Amino acid sequence: MRARDRQEQATRTHLLLRSGGFTVATAESLTGGKLAVRFTETPGASETYLGGVVTYATALKQTLLDVSDEVVEQYGVVSAECARAMASGIRARTGASFGIATTGVAGPAEQEGKPPGTVYVGLAGPGLLEAVALDLSGDRAEITDRTCDEALSALAAILQREEVGLG
Amino acid sequence: MRARDRQEQATRTHLLLRSGGFTVATAESLTGGKLAVRFTETPGASETYLGGVVTYATALKQTLLDVSDEVVEQYGVVSAECARAMASGIRARTGASFGIATTGVAGPAEQEGKPPGTVYVGLAGPGLLEAVALDLSGDRAEITDRTCDEALSALAAILQREEVGLG
Repeated sequence: MRARDRQEQATRTHLLLRSGGFTVATAESLTGGKLAVRFTETPGASETYLGGVVTYATALKQTLLDVSDEVVEQYGVVSAECARAMASGIRARTGASFGIATTGVAGPAEQEGKPPGTVYVGLAGPGLLEAVALDLSGDRAEITDRTCDEALSALAAILQREEVGLG
Repeated sequence: MRARDRQEQATRTHLLLRSGGFTVATAESLTGGKLAVRFTETPGASETYLGGVVTYATALKQTLLDVSDEVVEQYGVVSAECARAMASGIRARTGASFGIATTGVAGPAEQEGKPPGTVYVGLAGPGLLEAVALDLSGDRAEITDRTCDEALSALAAILQREEVGLG
């Protein structure tokens, strides 16, 4: 996705959130702040983006996001379960309508026996708790940029679904 | 500062932290995740960077960073007092050796009667709690990029001072 397309995607997501009276907060592992930047670069971001956390160290996933020991020990941090727990945790901590989380392997090294590009995006919202599994290619920067693309796409798709009760 | 200089600055800060056995965590307002990205783009970042928070909404400065009502009401969020409280808060919440915080006005509008470019960087560490006042020019992206440059410079300078007990 080109820089201009990324800006348009972020703006579109912001407008969808605003039209529904919704807010969003982020919980990031491999993207390390990039997802927060996508939201905060949009003019008027403070109307819909509350903030978020970057939990690079595993311990912070537990202390800042209330991810349970059980999830970390049983499934690992590179898992759909961890992505869902992170999204749910940031939503609860911030009171945002939606929590959106990223966890996975940016590379170049493997993590938890999983290759670079193994990524999970977690989404929590009203009546919603899901994870999207991604298998991305590219270097560290490409994998983290594409994770943000997919995370925003997933959120925008949810906002457009009637099930959430938009509008 | 050019992109290459920024990379070198982040790498140098990472190496200074590592040589002292130190860790760092970030608390960001106007930079909205950009400071976290500076740290996490450096190869080997997870050895010294624990994570951080983006507190775009004022309420999150209080719930995620323990900034007191008194600081917010008496000094405002665009203040040296708030920057110090944010740095101290993220250090306490994460257990990092150093906490580094950014707060200020990215623009284009004024905030709390202060013009765009009014920025404070907070630093907390062993025996250390200080704020640096900045008066930056440029558009929204330039002001936030320059805030990150100055924040990393301030941290690197502290790591090189003997007073902190480095080495």
